[in-house]
Amino acid sequence: MIHRNCIQTLIVLFTTFAMLASSGARADIPDELYEALNLEKSVAPNVLYDAIVERYRDPAQGAGEGALSDLWEPIPFSMYLNPTEHYVPPELDFEVERSDCVACHESVTPGWVHSWKGSVHGNLDEIRKLDPTDSRFYKKDMINDVENNLRSMGLLEKDQPLNSVGCIDCHIGVGAEKGNHQADLKMPDAAACGQCHVKEFAERESERDTQNWPQGQWPAGRPSHALSYLANVDTAIWAGMEEREIAVGCTLCHTTQNTCGSCHSRHKFSAAEARKPEACSTCHNGVDHNEFENFMLSRHGAIYNSSGDQWDWELPLADAFEKGGQTAPTCQTCHMEYDGEYGHNVVRKVRWGFNPLPETAENINDEWYSDRLDSWITTCSQCHSERFARSYFDVIDKGTAQGIALVSQAREVMDGLYADGLLVGQTTNRPAPPHPDEDGPGGFFSFFFTKGNNPTAVDVEFAEMWEQHNMRHFKGLAHVNPGGFTYTDGWAKLVRSLARIRDADTQLREKAALKKRIEELEAK
Amino acid sequence: MIHRNCIQTLIVLFTTFAMLASSGARADIPDELYEALNLEKSVAPNVLYDAIVERYRDPAQGAGEGALSDLWEPIPFSMYLNPTEHYVPPELDFEVERSDCVACHESVTPGWVHSWKGSVHGNLDEIRKLDPTDSRFYKKDMINDVENNLRSMGLLEKDQPLNSVGCIDCHIGVGAEKGNHQADLKMPDAAACGQCHVKEFAERESERDTQNWPQGQWPAGRPSHALSYLANVDTAIWAGMEEREIAVGCTLCHTTQNTCGSCHSRHKFSAAEARKPEACSTCHNGVDHNEFENFMLSRHGAIYNSSGDQWDWELPLADAFEKGGQTAPTCQTCHMEYDGEYGHNVVRKVRWGFNPLPETAENINDEWYSDRLDSWITTCSQCHSERFARSYFDVIDKGTAQGIALVSQAREVMDGLYADGLLVGQTTNRPAPPHPDEDGPGGFFSFFFTKGNNPTAVDVEFAEMWEQHNMRHFKGLAHVNPGGFTYTDGWAKLVRSLARIRDADTQLREKAALKKRIEELEAK
Amino acid sequence: MIHRNCIQTLIVLFTTFAMLASSGARADIPDELYEALNLEKSVAPNVLYDAIVERYRDPAQGAGEGALSDLWEPIPFSMYLNPTEHYVPPELDFEVERSDCVACHESVTPGWVHSWKGSVHGNLDEIRKLDPTDSRFYKKDMINDVENNLRSMGLLEKDQPLNSVGCIDCHIGVGAEKGNHQADLKMPDAAACGQCHVKEFAERESERDTQNWPQGQWPAGRPSHALSYLANVDTAIWAGMEEREIAVGCTLCHTTQNTCGSCHSRHKFSAAEARKPEACSTCHNGVDHNEFENFMLSRHGAIYNSSGDQWDWELPLADAFEKGGQTAPTCQTCHMEYDGEYGHNVVRKVRWGFNPLPETAENINDEWYSDRLDSWITTCSQCHSERFARSYFDVIDKGTAQGIALVSQAREVMDGLYADGLLVGQTTNRPAPPHPDEDGPGGFFSFFFTKGNNPTAVDVEFAEMWEQHNMRHFKGLAHVNPGGFTYTDGWAKLVRSLARIRDADTQLREKAALKKRIEELEAK
Repeated sequence: MIHRNCIQTLIVLFTTFAMLASSGARADIPDELYEALNLEKSVAPNVLYDAIVERYRDPAQGAGEGALSDLWEPIPFSMYLNPTEHYVPPELDFEVERSDCVACHESVTPGWVHSWKGSVHGNLDEIRKLDPTDSRFYKKDMINDVENNLRSMGLLEKDQPLNSVGCIDCHIGVGAEKGNHQADLKMPDAAACGQCHVKEFAERESERDTQNWPQGQWPAGRPSHALSYLANVDTAIWAGMEEREIAVGCTLCHTTQNTCGSCHSRHKFSAAEARKPEACSTCHNGVDHNEFENFMLSRHGAIYNSSGDQWDWELPLADAFEKGGQTAPTCQTCHMEYDGEYGHNVVRKVRWGFNPLPETAENINDEWYSDRLDSWITTCSQCHSERFARSYFDVIDKGTAQGIALVSQAREVMDGLYADGLLVGQTTNRPAPPHPDEDGPGGFFSFFFTKGNNPTAVDVEFAEMWEQHNMRHFKGLAHVNPGGFTYTDGWAKLVRSLARIRDADTQLREKAALKKRIEELEAK
Repeated sequence: MIHRNCIQTLIVLFTTFAMLASSGARADIPDELYEALNLEKSVAPNVLYDAIVERYRDPAQGAGEGALSDLWEPIPFSMYLNPTEHYVPPELDFEVERSDCVACHESVTPGWVHSWKGSVHGNLDEIRKLDPTDSRFYKKDMINDVENNLRSMGLLEKDQPLNSVGCIDCHIGVGAEKGNHQADLKMPDAAACGQCHVKEFAERESERDTQNWPQGQWPAGRPSHALSYLANVDTAIWAGMEEREIAVGCTLCHTTQNTCGSCHSRHKFSAAEARKPEACSTCHNGVDHNEFENFMLSRHGAIYNSSGDQWDWELPLADAFEKGGQTAPTCQTCHMEYDGEYGHNVVRKVRWGFNPLPETAENINDEWYSDRLDSWITTCSQCHSERFARSYFDVIDKGTAQGIALVSQAREVMDGLYADGLLVGQTTNRPAPPHPDEDGPGGFFSFFFTKGNNPTAVDVEFAEMWEQHNMRHFKGLAHVNPGGFTYTDGWAKLVRSLARIRDADTQLREKAALKKRIEELEAK
Repeated sequence: MIHRNCIQTLIVLFTTFAMLASSGARADIPDELYEALNLEKSVAPNVLYDAIVERYRDPAQGAGEGALSDLWEPIPFSMYLNPTEHYVPPELDFEVERSDCVACHESVTPGWVHSWKGSVHGNLDEIRKLDPTDSRFYKKDMINDVENNLRSMGLLEKDQPLNSVGCIDCHIGVGAEKGNHQADLKMPDAAACGQCHVKEFAERESERDTQNWPQGQWPAGRPSHALSYLANVDTAIWAGMEEREIAVGCTLCHTTQNTCGSCHSRHKFSAAEARKPEACSTCHNGVDHNEFENFMLSRHGAIYNSSGDQWDWELPLADAFEKGGQTAPTCQTCHMEYDGEYGHNVVRKVRWGFNPLPETAENINDEWYSDRLDSWITTCSQCHSERFARSYFDVIDKGTAQGIALVSQAREVMDGLYADGLLVGQTTNRPAPPHPDEDGPGGFFSFFFTKGNNPTAVDVEFAEMWEQHNMRHFKGLAHVNPGGFTYTDGWAKLVRSLARIRDADTQLREKAALKKRIEELEAK
């Protein structure tokens, strides 16, 4: 009897899952990428790769320095942040052979070499000899995939194994035996990694195709890791501000478009490392998108922090709970999963985006959002009941909308003050932000630019409100960190900012009224 | 000769300890609980359990939704925060047998099942077979205790061993062989855990009895984990505020009254995990009670962070230093200890409470406080000399009183402004906070509510001062985090708030004076 | 061919290194110390030790309670922060023998004893028996060094081995067999540790000699660990403020001058622990010098956090990368290194100091700074190319100067307001800070003192700007934490403070103008 009941239950609970699964979507490489590139899903790796690279390197589709490139005069360090555009090889005009790199750099920059020596790249044969019981056994298949990819590209003969992955393969060319240390040297971009790792490259590039906002809240394909550099160079104040070293500081995180090294630290490129929450921490922390802090302080994070050192991080994500002893999710567990499979499109279930907007709140029950909600429920249902998950998402959605409502009230006050010319110094000493940015109450430039009375104290307060407190409020809710949306961050900070803005509004209007009364007295 | 001297020393240093020990108090279950329940200490487990449960589930003694329950209209997620009041089983009306749960949920929600499989509950026989050298050997005795408890309740026959602890025991009933997945299903509360773990349940419930403030600083038995949900539903602004998802966010931490799962993450219920500081981190962090941050940045925390991974966390707390290699205290080492024994009453040595108040400062040398200080000295004396400990407590007590003095100065300014009607918009646009809260300068509602000019900027500033900076100041002192009470948090922030409040006081009074002069000019 | 090229490359890249190396400087004990003490480098350990101790304990050269000692009336806890000045042994007037300490304290304060039992001090023979493959093998040599030091001091006979390091050696005297628990007991200072560890003592004391600022930005030898207590007692507001427990809270970190225990936690004194970033965390965090947070959120820290538990921390720093699996630097890797060797002078490559000042920005390309930059490049070149390192230092230097420019603009506004008597309450209610501090706009006292209208809100804002945001801006840049200097801390906070200060400036001047107009109307 139970058997029948169990099946019934499964039917009830897995309807969503089944429906999604039947759509034929594969978690690893989303259909949307094939559609966008007008490719059959059965194409050979080289065809897929060439199509992705063509888009990846096309300035008309987001490569390069963007529409404001004249303002992004490179500084010396820029060559490491967008090497494709700015890298200049060192003046070392001599020939090197494959084995020379390590031989010489072992003395020059030993840290690189040690990392590589401890990497899979430096130990292909060790991987090939692994026993099926080894957690890293799945990497054998990855090597086979890489070999197949290279064969389809003509970079490896049929039946020829990949002997090694050394410095030269990435910095001069896959399979190269020698090259010139100046003329041929390059800093690898994501496409360089993608030549061997076609599937992973395709997955990450598919972020462009799945971020298709129904209300146009963001430009096509954004926000995403795949177009994060474009987002960087497109930001008006970062392009326009005078202090180029600070602007380039922002770029330090906006490099995921240009490199795989943002998550996979060179030169070990450890998958185990990239599976840990700390791999995300350098960029996903702080005043606006504080996912890392929220996770770490959530119950999920508390379990990771207290027990994570006993989990087997060498296993692929899909096996981590069943075989690896994992008992709580990490960033990767939830954000790299889609319908039960794991891949490098990390934004596929995004519903609110970075900055929760009224347009999203108003449409959050529409199909685009509810489909993604269903995918989230599948994720959470690995450990929680569907009902538990749905009821908590209800908290997320309503709580986020409540935060947005405070921002809207503040915006009205700020717009009123700006329209009435009542911001401090507004009529006497409010220079515009640098081109191409434009003035407005509490614009994003308020964090990076200050001149005369622009921004004023309430401009900054409002900028913090809509851009930082509002985002942290949502991130606290979404990561189940109670203090992150009630008290420490989020709601209480939104309340404080709104109170300060209303306070300023009253005082500025009182001052204007007093001034008028004095003028009237003087006029008598 | 040394032997005699050593004994002399021991006599000197251990007077306190001996005096306390001779009172007959047992660290595990405090006398106060027996007295409160009018029980002999020799009563059988079932008698003790029944008496505790009766109180635990009595709405007149803190159970349920409290006096403001009409305002706490449950949202869907509420059923997981107070299941006793709000849980509705899923519509799955069929019979299940003991073995069905795992068989089915292994597919439906595998995360649960894996955690349980790795738990003591899922491995009773493995525990029974442990060698005395195993760190978990003490759990054998715990199983014996559980069996004795169940026998006294008639849930286990004499000599009948406990075969297993499966889903059904907690979610339908201890020892049940089958049940209906809808009619019989329940979400376990602390009393459900307490049926097997009577001692631990009694310990945690005893927090109601030992929190008896001599100056009535808090209601009887509070603040405590045992009545944390009552504290939550009794909070006027949380009950009254419009945004129910934010209010329920506060509840996310205020669940220790309702469940043991706040510290013992389901479904592994790992004691080792619960012994680590991170187990406390989700709730004890942030703008008000930042114990976790203070510990982690203290020298104690620095040692934990750098060496804790080499300590044996499977050992009971009492053996952690001697056998487990522990070299610095954790939250649990200090707060679960009382006179050398460890238990689940975590507030037994509380002297200042959450929020340091003038009433406490004025009486800190009275007997109630000095007895608790003696207990602290016993705690610290495990590693520090008594004199070291006492001299540092002197820093805590005097430093805390210094912080309170700043708050009192600010309160005077705020009361003056409020009495004179001078807060921004006070006479024109200061709506009352939602019922049942009441208006006042810088009330607790200032963090959660904003309408018109209530709260004003200085209201929020003062609320942060008395409720957040003051608490963090004390917590920094108590956890020996230098920056936590001098500079980063605490004192410097109290100074800043007081400076801002005085600044506003002067400016608001200057403005009123100017306005009056204009009125006088106009009247001419 | 490659061989020649490689050599060429090495020549190019290592010019700096070679030049520095040829100066004869030893990383461990800098020449500057010998010069300052007028000693030959070949002197015997006892001569070197005696010379260092003489300076270390000389009040005219920074020992003791400083020029403001009359204001530093000790509180009971002071005896543990500067034991040399304030320690009073307990009233335990009896003789103890070497073996008595452990025998008795095992009961009295077992935590101490367990830590010592797990230490190298408690296990000399275990170290002596180590196999060369053991990571701790290098400690054998350290024991030999210690024995040689003690022999040169006449504390050990020729060929006599050091049998043990027990409580009595540090708390009564090296090699003592007995003593009086009152008359003879002492709390060890750094010189007590230095008696055995002469080289390490000399290294740390050499910080006085290498901190010789060309523009006199700081007093000689500061900021440094070696003179951190002097910096503490010399701070006017800490000496003068009424609340002595808060002032002594600052001292909690300023103890490195007095003890080695700030980094090497007693009584294990674990080198492995002291090699981890957390060893620095208690003091190097927070609103001003947040090195710990910046490191932890940098890519360096992310790698440490995710992989550090697999590195061999028992190895000496010099072997950590090559033999210990280390793949990213820690605090110690960079700050204890100098020209490829590691020692306890942690400030030898300092260029900007704690607080980036205009005087430094204006001279940052001078030789003193560029020599130190060269040493940094050597450090970074262990893993990065020289060009990478130099181009990032360019970001650090220019970005820091950009932050300083904002501070200078704010200073001008504050000076103007102060000169014009326009700060809130300035002419009516601005008491001076306590002696010996003096009033000024946004002085350091603004964090610790508040009375009447001193400090005002903008005073605190400016103090936070020049002392906290400016420092964090630099620390974020220097530790490559993007959010630490762009957005979360640093630049955006400097911008906000400057905006608030300008806002206040405009409003205070507008108010003064209005007041004047009213006066003119009244005068009519």
